Order: sequence, then C-alpha cells, then structure tokens
Amino acid sequence: MNRRKFFRNGSLFTLGTALISPFESTANILDLQTINKNKKAKNIIFMVSDGMSTGTLNMADLYLNRKTGKGSNWLQLYKEQRINRALMDTASASSIVTDSSAGSSSWGGGFRVNNGSLNVGPNGEMHMPIWQKFKKAGKMAGCVTTVPITHATPAGFCVNSKSRNAQEDIAEQYLELGFDIMMGGGNNYFSADIRKDKKDIYALYKAKGWQVARTRQEMIAADNSKPVLGVFADDGLPYNIDRTNDKSLTDTTPTLAEMAQKAIDRMKGNKNGFVLQIEAGKVDWGAHANDIGALLYDQVAFDEAIKVAIDFASKDGETLVIITTDHGNANPGVIYGKDSNNNFDSIQKYTHTNEWILNSIKPDNTIAQVREIVESANATAISEEDAKTVLTYYDGLHKEEGGLYNYKKVPFKTFAQIQQKHNSVGWISMDHSADYVELAMFGPGSELLKPFVKNTDLHYLMLQAAEVENKF
Amino acid sequence: MNRRKFFRNGSLFTLGTALISPFESTANILDLQTINKNKKAKNIIFMVSDGMSTGTLNMADLYLNRKTGKGSNWLQLYKEQRINRALMDTASASSIVTDSSAGSSSWGGGFRVNNGSLNVGPNGEMHMPIWQKFKKAGKMAGCVTTVPITHATPAGFCVNSKSRNAQEDIAEQYLELGFDIMMGGGNNYFSADIRKDKKDIYALYKAKGWQVARTRQEMIAADNSKPVLGVFADDGLPYNIDRTNDKSLTDTTPTLAEMAQKAIDRMKGNKNGFVLQIEAGKVDWGAHANDIGALLYDQVAFDEAIKVAIDFASKDGETLVIITTDHGNANPGVIYGKDSNNNFDSIQKYTHTNEWILNSIKPDNTIAQVREIVESANATAISEEDAKTVLTYYDGLHKEEGGLYNYKKVPFKTFAQIQQKHNSVGWISMDHSADYVELAMFGPGSELLKPFVKNTDLHYLMLQAAEVENKF
Repeated sequence: MNRRKFFRNGSLFTLGTALISPFESTANILDLQTINKNKKAKNIIFMVSDGMSTGTLNMADLYLNRKTGKGSNWLQLYKEQRINRALMDTASASSIVTDSSAGSSSWGGGFRVNNGSLNVGPNGEMHMPIWQKFKKAGKMAGCVTTVPITHATPAGFCVNSKSRNAQEDIAEQYLELGFDIMMGGGNNYFSADIRKDKKDIYALYKAKGWQVARTRQEMIAADNSKPVLGVFADDGLPYNIDRTNDKSLTDTTPTLAEMAQKAIDRMKGNKNGFVLQIEAGKVDWGAHANDIGALLYDQVAFDEAIKVAIDFASKDGETLVIITTDHGNANPGVIYGKDSNNNFDSIQKYTHTNEWILNSIKPDNTIAQVREIVESANATAISEEDAKTVLTYYDGLHKEEGGLYNYKKVPFKTFAQIQQKHNSVGWISMDHSADYVELAMFGPGSELLKPFVKNTDLHYLMLQAAEVENKF
Repeated sequence: MNRRKFFRNGSLFTLGTALISPFESTANILDLQTINKNKKAKNIIFMVSDGMSTGTLNMADLYLNRKTGKGSNWLQLYKEQRINRALMDTASASSIVTDSSAGSSSWGGGFRVNNGSLNVGPNGEMHMPIWQKFKKAGKMAGCVTTVPITHATPAGFCVNSKSRNAQEDIAEQYLELGFDIMMGGGNNYFSADIRKDKKDIYALYKAKGWQVARTRQEMIAADNSKPVLGVFADDGLPYNIDRTNDKSLTDTTPTLAEMAQKAIDRMKGNKNGFVLQIEAGKVDWGAHANDIGALLYDQVAFDEAIKVAIDFASKDGETLVIITTDHGNANPGVIYGKDSNNNFDSIQKYTHTNEWILNSIKPDNTIAQVREIVESANATAISEEDAKTVLTYYDGLHKEEGGLYNYKKVPFKTFAQIQQKHNSVGWISMDHSADYVELAMFGPGSELLKPFVKNTDLHYLMLQAAEVENKF
C-alpha cells in the first residue's frame, strides 16, 4: 500500500520548501545525514545565543512569522530537515543552574567546572580550551560577540582563568595565545585610560602585527590576511533595536552578522580550516533585565548571523555549524488572554529597549514626560499611575533595583511588569534557569549528535567531527 | 581515518545504555528508523501531559535524576535513541496561545478552531474527530485521563461540540458513538444526583452493555471483553502526591499508569488494532495554580504511564506512541542562586500539594497553625510574616485570588511566591503560554515526523501511519 496515497490537507507533507528557502544554497536537503556521514568537518562555527530560554527562540520565530510571514532562519532549518537537534543538559559542577563561564567551559574544556571559573576545575585542574587545541591542529581560531570579547563565553573557548572577572588579564592572554580574529565590546579591558594597570593593550596587539578596529568602517577595511582585534564599545555593544534606531550607532558599530561574515572571510582561506565562535551575548543581558525589546531583537540579530553561517557552510560543504545556548534565562513566554495576539504584535512597533527608556527618564521628569518617553519607544501609552510608580525609583531616596548588568539601578523589573499588561510577555525571574536547552547541528559531524546530551559532550563531538585526536 | 579512535572522556559515546534501560524490551535500539520504515501502525497511543512547558519536562527529569540517580522514562528514550522528536507550534484559530479544547481539536479534527470549541470551526464547520475515523476503520478506541473524562483533551479526539463546557452532553455523546474504554474523573456529568437534567447516565451506559467502575478495585475487576466506563471522582482525580500520601485515595483511585494498562489490556486483542489517548490532565491544573508539588509529581505519574505504553509498544512492534503536550503553561523553571540545588531538592520531601495546604487552612487558624500545616506538607518552615500574609486571605473580607480551577479562591499565587524563597521555582503567570512544545514519537510511523510541525499535522500523520485513508 502506497503511503503517499494518504496525504490529505496536512502542511506536514507540503513539497517545495526549497523554493521559499531563505538560504543561498539548498540543493541537498534530502538525506543530509547520509551525505554527512564519514565526512570530516574542516571548519566549525559554534553559535551561542547566550541565556536563550526555549521561549526566546519561539518568540523570535513567532514575531518574524507574524511580521514578515516567514519565521526564523533557525527554525527554517528544521522545516527543511537540514539539521540534527537535541536537548542539552546545561548544569555546572557547582549547580544545576550554570553561569556563562561554567557553561562555556563545559564546551571549551570538556569538563564541568564551578560557576565563575573558566576551564579551571573544582580542585584546580587546568583543562585545555578547545580553540587552543584546534590552533595546535593547524586551524585558525576566533570569536565574535556583542558583549566584551573578554567575557565568559568567548573566554571559555580560549583561556584558563580561576575567575571570569579577570577580563584585563584575559585581554592579554588572547594576544599571547595568538588567535586570528577577536571582535566585540570591552574597551574597558584594553584601554590604557581605563585599565587599572594603565597598560595600552591595543599597542601590544599592534606590535604583534594585529590590526585594531574600533569602528564598523575600520572592521570592514581590515586586511583579511592579518589578525584582527575589533573593539566597538567600552562594555557590551548596543542592543540591536537601539542600534537600528540610532544613526550614529548604526554607522559605527557592526551587527553580529557583519562580524560573523568578517570572521569567516578572515579565516576561510586557511589550508587546515578554522574554528569560530559567534555569540549573541546580549540576549542574556536582555533576559536579566526582563527587557523584551532588547531580548527579542537581539535574538533576531542572532538569527541573521545564522544565515551568514549557514550560507557559508552550505556552499563550503566542510563546515559543521552548531547552534545553541549555554542556559535558559527568565523563561519568557506569551501569556494566554483575549488580547494576546495584539499585545504580542505591539512589540513590532518598539523602537528602543527598556534600558533606553529607563535611562532616558530623569529625576525631575513629570508623569506626563515619563509617559511620553515610554510612548516614543513602545508606541504604547502606560497609565498615569504606572508612570508614577516608575518615577518613584528616580528620587534617589526611596527605592532601587539591583540585578546583573543593571549598573544604573534602574527599575527593570517594575517596568517589565507594567509592560506585561500591554505585551502579554511574562518572566519567571531575572536570572538563569536550569532548563535543558535547544541544540541544532548542520553539516559534517552533525550526524554524531544524539537526542539528549550533556554540555560537556560537545567538546568531544567537535574533536571527533574534525578528526583531531584529543592528545595535547 | 577511524572516527572511533577519537573517543575521549565523553559520555556522548558511552556504550551499553541498553544494560541500564528501565524498559522491558530494548532489543532493537539501533537504526529504529530503518526498522520502522514502511511498517504500518496497527495501534496508536497518544500521550498528552496537558499544559506541560518545557521546564516541566526538564524539572521532572532533574528531580528523578537527583532523587533516584535515573532520569525520566521520557528522556531515557532520547538517551537510547529510540524516538524521533520535534518542536510543535500549538496555536489555535483564534490565538497564538491555545486552550486545551482547540489544542486537542487540532490533533483530533486536523483543523485549527477557536479557543473553547471542540472540532467546530470558526464558521461552524464540523470536523470529524479522529477516534471516530479509527472506529470506522475497525479499530477500538478509548481515552484515560486524570481530569473529567468529558474534559477538553479527551473530548477533542471524540466529539464535536461548540463549547467545551457542554460536559453533560459530551458524556451522552460518548455512549452514542460507542467507544471501548473511557476512564477518568467527572461524576458531576454522569450522576443523576448532580446533573441539571437529573438523567442517570450510568444507567444508560449499563443498558448498552458497558461496565461502570467507580473505584480502582472495580476497574481492575472489569471484564476486558466488554466496554468500560471508569469514573473515579466528581471532578478531577486527586493529584498524584496527595493520592500517594492518603491511604483511602490510594485504595480507591487508580494511577494514570494503571488506567493506561487497563485500557491497553481491554483493547489489545482487537483484530484491527486500537487507538488510545492517555492524558495527564492535572499537570495543567497544577501549572494554573503554580503548585509545584501538584505539577511535578503528576508529571512523574505521566512518566510512569509512558513506561506502560513503551513496554507494550516495544513488545508489540505495531504500535505508534506519540508523547507530547497541547501547550505550555506558566513556563516554570529552577532559578539561579547559591542555594538552587538544595532548594530544588527540598521538593523531594513534599507530601502534599499547595491545594491540600491551602484547603487545610481555616479562618480561625493561628499563625503558628498555618506554619505547622505548611511544614507538615513541605518539610519547610515559612516565616511568621509569610504565614500572616497567607492568613489575610481567609477572613472572607479583604482579599481573594481567582484563576482557573481555583474553585475555593485560595491564595495559590501568593503561596507560590512564598514557596519560591525555599524551592527556587519561578513561574511567568498562572496561564498557558505560546511556546512551541516538545513532541516525541516511538514505533512505526515515527519516521514520518519532521523536526518542526504544526499541531494539526499530527492528525494526518496518524492516519498515514495507520494507513487509514482520510475519506469519511
């Protein structure tokens, strides 16, 4: 009996997905597992949307679907059956809820370490980071991120450090280890004016033949035959939505996709291949702030970087692309209610983050001015009472909010709760969660992925896929 | 170059999972896709943990791992590579956030309908429910659940109804349609004493040759050669954790696994096979109440029913098992913090739900008595101030909480927020979420599953897997 006889009405069996694919090459979407089998991964691109709960991935797809009629690049890979996917257990040595340094170390060093450490085990064991291993195997290696390039996630692939906070030291370690392209924020850890020891780290990089790019234009102009250090902000790069709506930021800072493309172009000619980490680090910061505009549009920027990676890997045919996150954060989701659709769609009209809104409000603002600022950024009117509540955090006397990356103590939580009435998005907390997370792989080596893995498994999978023996 | 040469340290490549498998038959764990290909699904078991956010699945696995050293049966299937899995888009016709009737109708009727409807489209279209289709194809059909058997999820596979609330009518429709075993709660909709029309529905079932079981013992004693109606509670069955810790409930009400086993035994001899829905309906109710003891232990009870289904299907070889949920609810998760591990582990000592706690508190209780009640059920002391806050909801004057299934207006939300200080579990709301959800398939037909599907796709996949032509 012919099974195809039974197709009826279901979108499950729709043909011709290749016709509407956003990717540049979709020739071999059938039986990719067979094609990939026993083929070596010459290159590896490891993509991390930091602190991405399942709800963040889903909301970005939902947002894009409803705005453009076409979902995310990430889930398009699923629809076209071009990937293998898994659930990943993200725990660290010290907790069922990891931080980003232990998370990255699990991949980077192949062992679980305590939260706060970078490839240094609970008893001081030093685990060689995987980008060092691949360098020794003759590959080029680099990282690009929207947070400081010295931050936990890139650092976990590159260095050993008892503390993730040693970012000044990490900036120097990168140079010593000789990576090929490192780009993100973090001027605070490179600049002689800001560093505690007043060392000019840029000068040291230049002395060793690196090009230093401090703007988008300088990045584009950098010669692909020499190492590149790109540092485009003191701390993290601007959130995507704030960047998009501010011409000076758009002109001077690159997108994650642009950094990804530059890094690929810099390293793709290497005879023995390359390894590249691409991190949407501020997705995590957006979750810590329960800042939906920050979170959602940075996840979309990550999705655009996925297209860059997949387009390259599709043509290249020798590149394993790993797409995942290090842990959940705040488990956001759209909540049931009669206005859920319209409320969620209202985020399409946002032009700025809550960070921008809350930093725009000044102690001497009136209630009317607060409402104006919110409306200018969210195209939504909040009530006078809610505006008044927000203002109570600005007199410097009564209340303040803390939270990671909330340097200016603005009322992120309070504002997210007000905003929820208008956008239907809820959050469980302002911190990481223990959830198992989404993981997808494309290209040679992806056939090695099992449906459930521990974070540490990826270290060995990468070595196996690239056929690099783990003897260092 | 031999890839296996590169295995190092990684648990990814550990052999011998079959040796520690909890399942009765694990002979053919290799290349199940090939084995299943072109094999017909004679039987289908469709398992729904209602309102199960990804975090609920993860927490149950984490809980079991930490308590017993062995994770959930659900994820064990992933570890043994015995399943195909997907993300599923759960939207309804009226909202990106579905309710359970539209969710079940998408599977049951193959079309998205408005929230609140059962297989009746936005313009009054009637979609034939899939258990009726399979009955016409000669199969036996049944449902078991921990909520009323007339509730949205079983009803969506069986009947057409403009409103999910028409549970009295649905009780009569089941009889008319002639299913083979229907068990759960819902005496309210069968009993002449309680129904508005005073009809004795039990008598009507008996008159048509059905056996009526009102207790666990009667269920066990029922003859497997005749239809069985099992109704074990007025409304939903007791939560698993309350049942386990109350001998009279343990004696009189069956577990979901026991109902599943009975239903399989009742129908497995049928020449043309059978279809069975197994629903952990109160996982959803636990999420609506932010009641972690209710949620977690009912998810564990669902997991035990998975073992019953997989053990049968493994031996049988002709059974497709689908394991999923209709939508997320409250997106719970364990939150980062220095005490996260111990806090989460404290739930192992719980003996009762928050529902039990909050219904045990009386208006004339003292603060000390409230603290005692909580400690007796959670093995955790709450502060005097928190006990006082809880008590303010009991004077009948000041405050009350609403929420679905919160018939007695107890302070579920307030209590969950207090409890969070001690168990580190957070919630985004007390309602459904728009998240895409987890879906796994085992057995013949599972190879048809793509990595991303719409809920409606499953309707056609079931027909295709069973080789039942969609002409009715």
